Amino acid sequence: MIRVTVWHEYLPHEETSDVLAAYPEGLGTALADIYRGEEFSVHNAYFSESEQGLPERLLDQTDVLLWWGHGRHHLVEEITVNRVADRVRQGMGAIFLHSAHASKPFIRLMGTTCTLKWREAGEREHLWITSPTHPIAQGLGDCFSIPHEEMYGEYFDIPTPDDVVFVGWFQGGNVFRSGVTYTRGLGKVFYFQPGHETFPVYTQPEIKQVLQNAARWANPVFRKELSCPNEQNPREKINF
Amino acid sequence: MIRVTVWHEYLPHEETSDVLAAYPEGLGTALADIYRGEEFSVHNAYFSESEQGLPERLLDQTDVLLWWGHGRHHLVEEITVNRVADRVRQGMGAIFLHSAHASKPFIRLMGTTCTLKWREAGEREHLWITSPTHPIAQGLGDCFSIPHEEMYGEYFDIPTPDDVVFVGWFQGGNVFRSGVTYTRGLGKVFYFQPGHETFPVYTQPEIKQVLQNAARWANPVFRKELSCPNEQNPREKINF
Amino acid sequence: MIRVTVWHEYLPHEETSDVLAAYPEGLGTALADIYRGEEFSVHNAYFSESEQGLPERLLDQTDVLLWWGHGRHHLVEEITVNRVADRVRQGMGAIFLHSAHASKPFIRLMGTTCTLKWREAGEREHLWITSPTHPIAQGLGDCFSIPHEEMYGEYFDIPTPDDVVFVGWFQGGNVFRSGVTYTRGLGKVFYFQPGHETFPVYTQPEIKQVLQNAARWANPVFRKELSCPNEQNPREKINF
Amino acid sequence: MIRVTVWHEYLPHEETSDVLAAYPEGLGTALADIYRGEEFSVHNAYFSESEQGLPERLLDQTDVLLWWGHGRHHLVEEITVNRVADRVRQGMGAIFLHSAHASKPFIRLMGTTCTLKWREAGEREHLWITSPTHPIAQGLGDCFSIPHEEMYGEYFDIPTPDDVVFVGWFQGGNVFRSGVTYTRGLGKVFYFQPGHETFPVYTQPEIKQVLQNAARWANPVFRKELSCPNEQNPREKINF
Repeated sequence: MIRVTVWHEYLPHEETSDVLAAYPEGLGTALADIYRGEEFSVHNAYFSESEQGLPERLLDQTDVLLWWGHGRHHLVEEITVNRVADRVRQGMGAIFLHSAHASKPFIRLMGTTCTLKWREAGEREHLWITSPTHPIAQGLGDCFSIPHEEMYGEYFDIPTPDDVVFVGWFQGGNVFRSGVTYTRGLGKVFYFQPGHETFPVYTQPEIKQVLQNAARWANPVFRKELSCPNEQNPREKINF
Repeated sequence: MIRVTVWHEYLPHEETSDVLAAYPEGLGTALADIYRGEEFSVHNAYFSESEQGLPERLLDQTDVLLWWGHGRHHLVEEITVNRVADRVRQGMGAIFLHSAHASKPFIRLMGTTCTLKWREAGEREHLWITSPTHPIAQGLGDCFSIPHEEMYGEYFDIPTPDDVVFVGWFQGGNVFRSGVTYTRGLGKVFYFQPGHETFPVYTQPEIKQVLQNAARWANPVFRKELSCPNEQNPREKINF
Repeated sequence: MIRVTVWHEYLPHEETSDVLAAYPEGLGTALADIYRGEEFSVHNAYFSESEQGLPERLLDQTDVLLWWGHGRHHLVEEITVNRVADRVRQGMGAIFLHSAHASKPFIRLMGTTCTLKWREAGEREHLWITSPTHPIAQGLGDCFSIPHEEMYGEYFDIPTPDDVVFVGWFQGGNVFRSGVTYTRGLGKVFYFQPGHETFPVYTQPEIKQVLQNAARWANPVFRKELSCPNEQNPREKINF
Repeated sequence: MIRVTVWHEYLPHEETSDVLAAYPEGLGTALADIYRGEEFSVHNAYFSESEQGLPERLLDQTDVLLWWGHGRHHLVEEITVNRVADRVRQGMGAIFLHSAHASKPFIRLMGTTCTLKWREAGEREHLWITSPTHPIAQGLGDCFSIPHEEMYGEYFDIPTPDDVVFVGWFQGGNVFRSGVTYTRGLGKVFYFQPGHETFPVYTQPEIKQVLQNAARWANPVFRKELSCPNEQNPREKINF
């Protein structure tokens, strides 16, 4: 059983009417709904909860953390950022969604600005699979489409990904590395572009498939705190 | 002319007698001496100076920053870390030396713990070239050796490098990715393992060659502050 | 001076009228014209010449080889394929253009099928820069467009590139890794998608800029035949 | 059940006495013995069999192919090389062992010379894990050692690996990327350095663990012949 925690900045009653039109129960709930079923257990965490929703005891029981944020990026405290980044380095999986490209934990794990071009025109996106045997791409054919999505375009300032799983095409003429993977310490990180809050993207079957695949892929291989051990006793005798 | 700034944590008179035995003028001076000559201009910056040695007006005139630190990692302030990391993302080159693997700016740019194994036994290191056509490897043959060096060993917790230029062999049985490169935004980053403060490693011709090559390689292609532009006017008409 | 050899399958008089409409002097001539000027010397080589246009003595004097082929891929002999691939491994740069994705030397150097989707509809392509500091991307801004081009689309079966310099957007809804780089032995390889034979793509200033940049980038660092040396005398004494 | 085929150049009775001293039943048999048990089914294929041991009907039923060869590299025919390389591109896993670095199918899949340094001194090798969460590295701690092994040393002329799982340390002062992974089309490829024919390396528990892990990892995600489809009907209407 993969234990998924969905972190969202707004409780359902804090969402705007635009968002509730797309997601009547709130965006956090819609994301959690993707992980109903025997294979996963899922928990919702919110910014306004104690310790910004992510106390150590919750992270102890989280295999994969999903992060969706936009309006409250600047309010996420250093202690929260470090707690999340450290856990990833110790093996916890992390999936950063849409505007979480600009979240502090993602930037902390990438080391770059994670800036990009954007346009809110509700245009069509085609997502092409560029790593067909990657676990995250299974069950999707060679392309799938989203009817209305905010455009995110290159140049996307990220480190060279381990794998580019999806490249997105937008009606207005832009392209984007819409699904990219990284390893950070013992943890796996997936950034996935789709998911503007006013379109019901996370109810689309292909998107659910990607996010379920991603949680399976990001599930920890093992967990451990990495340190700097002094190896006083060498494997080989040192002669001069 | 490539403008090099050498940042070191200790002024010459702050160094211990062990270090002064290897580097009579101090480690910072020895590093700056590598960049004497027509091709470079070099400046020494120290932790104890104003703004921890790295005010904006200095970074404005720095093409490539060398960073050597160990004892004062924890004293480097967030404002300094961010100033350095931001400049790298805007195009400034950065060379992190030896124990700077654990410096805050390097960790900020990598996103990992940057932990490793270590042993102070003064053992021999052979550095093998694994990217023979990389600009940093030119003029070195296929291997060179350091008579006495602190051992740094795998697992080195870094992201997958763009290029592994050198792999180090240590007498006691360890190996290490001793020279690795990264791109972060518009800036190039080189981490180089050799340079324990009590051995005169930086006076060795091959090491000087590597560090001169690295400064040439890391010299900015261009500099710019990356941002998130709203592209309201698409290249193509958006029809529904 | 960078010595460029442009290999093309058809002599000017062998070209079809469609091609001559776009390139009155032939495609090979148009490609060579990109390298007029002090920085380069250029030579045209053709399939129908002796040794399929690429004798050893010509490759001895070639720094960077451009390859454009389509109709005669199957006629290129093993001896020619091996001669080209071996030279690249020894340091010669190679630029494979458009339908040369399916040429034998490119497949030999990649190890994959190099297959892709395609469509001849003369649609518009926008090429987005995804590696802004790469030498091949200099002088181009963040995007440039080709008015009419054959569509090449993902999945493009290539190994993970060292760098993806350009991602292409096509009107019909496809994306493509339109400019990708590799290292093979001591040689650098660039594949560039644009250049359908019936559109005057190679007369466009941005395309010329890319191809000049690419020749500078692919110019050999050094040349040498790699072998499997027996190192009978170890650097360290072997005790049991 | 993962169907493993072990290809070896010599039938047990063709092996020299040196090899039989290390592997009394022959090297091919020893390799097959690693895959006894419920999780795998294993078949031995030999050079001297019909179609050089690898007819299409056998490859149809092979999930992962192990290749050990040295003395008969030059006798492997083009038709065999192409049959193996094509199958890998269609999804079959491939594990190339020790001197198979110089085998024709490995070179065909890599595109480089795959040359390296070597020395037969029976020296000790320590294999350090540099990708601790890679499936091939599980169950091995952070390092394991081989008492006697032929030295293979850098520079190893291979493309930049997807992952470097092991870096080897040799007593005589050399290092080597001893375990590297690639994707070629839909197939996964693992090269593993250990396994000189006169030392019983393949009977060592850690080596067996690596090779079982590798077969699990290389097991096809899916299989398909990649081609170049003409997409005449675009996803988007093309207007001029």
